[in-house]
Amino acid sequence: MGKQIIAVDLGGTQIRTARYDLDLNLLQRENTLTQAHLGLQPTIERMKAFVRKVMPACRDEILGLGISSPGPLNPFTGVIVAPPNLQGWLDVPLRDIMESEFNVPVYIGNDANVAALAEASKGAAQGSRHVTYITVSTGIGAGIICDGKLLLGRDGLAAEFGHIPIVLDNGMVSSVEREAAGPAIARRVKREIQEGAKSKVMEIVQGDLNRIDAKAVGMAAAAGDQLGIAQLAYAGRIIGLGIVAILHLFNPEVIVIGGGVSKTGDLLFAPMREALRTHVMDEAYIKDLRIERSALGDDVALVGAAALAATDGGNLDISELDRRF
Amino acid sequence: MGKQIIAVDLGGTQIRTARYDLDLNLLQRENTLTQAHLGLQPTIERMKAFVRKVMPACRDEILGLGISSPGPLNPFTGVIVAPPNLQGWLDVPLRDIMESEFNVPVYIGNDANVAALAEASKGAAQGSRHVTYITVSTGIGAGIICDGKLLLGRDGLAAEFGHIPIVLDNGMVSSVEREAAGPAIARRVKREIQEGAKSKVMEIVQGDLNRIDAKAVGMAAAAGDQLGIAQLAYAGRIIGLGIVAILHLFNPEVIVIGGGVSKTGDLLFAPMREALRTHVMDEAYIKDLRIERSALGDDVALVGAAALAATDGGNLDISELDRRF
Repeated sequence: MGKQIIAVDLGGTQIRTARYDLDLNLLQRENTLTQAHLGLQPTIERMKAFVRKVMPACRDEILGLGISSPGPLNPFTGVIVAPPNLQGWLDVPLRDIMESEFNVPVYIGNDANVAALAEASKGAAQGSRHVTYITVSTGIGAGIICDGKLLLGRDGLAAEFGHIPIVLDNGMVSSVEREAAGPAIARRVKREIQEGAKSKVMEIVQGDLNRIDAKAVGMAAAAGDQLGIAQLAYAGRIIGLGIVAILHLFNPEVIVIGGGVSKTGDLLFAPMREALRTHVMDEAYIKDLRIERSALGDDVALVGAAALAATDGGNLDISELDRRF
Repeated sequence: MGKQIIAVDLGGTQIRTARYDLDLNLLQRENTLTQAHLGLQPTIERMKAFVRKVMPACRDEILGLGISSPGPLNPFTGVIVAPPNLQGWLDVPLRDIMESEFNVPVYIGNDANVAALAEASKGAAQGSRHVTYITVSTGIGAGIICDGKLLLGRDGLAAEFGHIPIVLDNGMVSSVEREAAGPAIARRVKREIQEGAKSKVMEIVQGDLNRIDAKAVGMAAAAGDQLGIAQLAYAGRIIGLGIVAILHLFNPEVIVIGGGVSKTGDLLFAPMREALRTHVMDEAYIKDLRIERSALGDDVALVGAAALAATDGGNLDISELDRRF
């Protein structure tokens, strides 16, 4: 057995751990509930226990341990700042904690950034050097590969696509995320229904307004519900405008889109593509552009954590992955 | 004398040529009028003649020849596509033309991109690895240094900051450039005056509405004219919103602002900074951010053309500049 990598996907709901070879082929995997409500220390102990399950007897075989975590976090210091869905986590020096426990190099990246590495290394953007990964879920995040390297920025705070300021409606400034993430879609549908609109969404949530979420809106829209279709189209257009900013700034080769809301498919993607065609400054930006659905699905953060370790925390060019040893 | 670099700044008004040493110190410079109205071939002959003026007797001393040109252009093929201010230029293979003439390696970059290299190498952002250069003039352009390297994108079309889409009150999509470049500022002032507003601008242009430009607006605003102040503030706010997108996506260390409109100073910069403070998602993005005026002024494209050649067309990290030989 050659060198291997340990990967951890620390999420608000689940902790997944796995072992990969250096080609990012899965060798072993485990998962458990995060149970974040129990607090910081029990979650860390649980993470350690599930890392141990995938750790080989001989530590020397391990090149590194990569962790995907919700942000904000500092990838250079390995400190998790204050993720909204990890209760009680505040400035946790997770890298140091894991390095002292396992005595291997530990790398920490935010979930959207490592997902970009994953899709560029083993997913829908494999072989491309100019890649933007966008996740549309309860939030909207992105990770960007610039000419083969993960874009981190001075403090590792790149690339918050969801926070592009985009709408100056009635003079107010909003953002891609506040207009187009799952909760925004659900909120607008709910408001329209409260104001008297009819919608199939109400059947799906069995008449309970508070159960309306983007998934229910997507189901209704797929069944032809006009309100659902209109609200997904609005979200798609806003995301499309954000992508126009990305195209003009980065001139990428591939845009990979993941996250739960992206499962609504063309209901979201068609208006998004229409916004690109309408608002791009020059045909050259979209002529050979590929827009792909995430190929790695639920595994994207786990593969990304492994890719993070394999690229020395994003310091290496993704083309070096095969050549490192 | 060690190795040297030839630099060309091809502009709509002037052609400047110069010779630099490898530390980008100026050794010799020349300039002439472009006279673009004479057409393509005379302009190229004029450029060649003024390159010859700065070319040393021994060609072996020349590391390369860098050219700053208005875009759109393809830095990978060295073809100038169709610059609006160079009449008759359409898909001109300028790199090949200059390489056959002078038999030295030729590198071509758009003016905003090479300006970013210049400010990061020898200007206001010297020593920084995460730099955004923005020029506010008749257009709004940008060049971005990501972790020490010039961002070009797949086809070299990055980084069109001016074309970030901005959604206006009436639901229409505009862009940073269409709202905040010099002509937009002049257009709004002119319209308000036509609709009856009083403004000191009219004294400056001696009553001739058609002579209103951003410079006149800036002069009036500096003298306390409320209309000029308001319109520069609007432009500053729009540029500020565009910079918020840059901060969230790139997390830069320094933003350098150049171009004629930036000479209006705090009339533009104060509302811009206010937009940053108001709309940035987290204090961390602006805590240590430096916002600087261009240090190289009119020489920025010429120094940038030299820096482009010195970095092998932007392929080398700017930190390699000193170590190349």
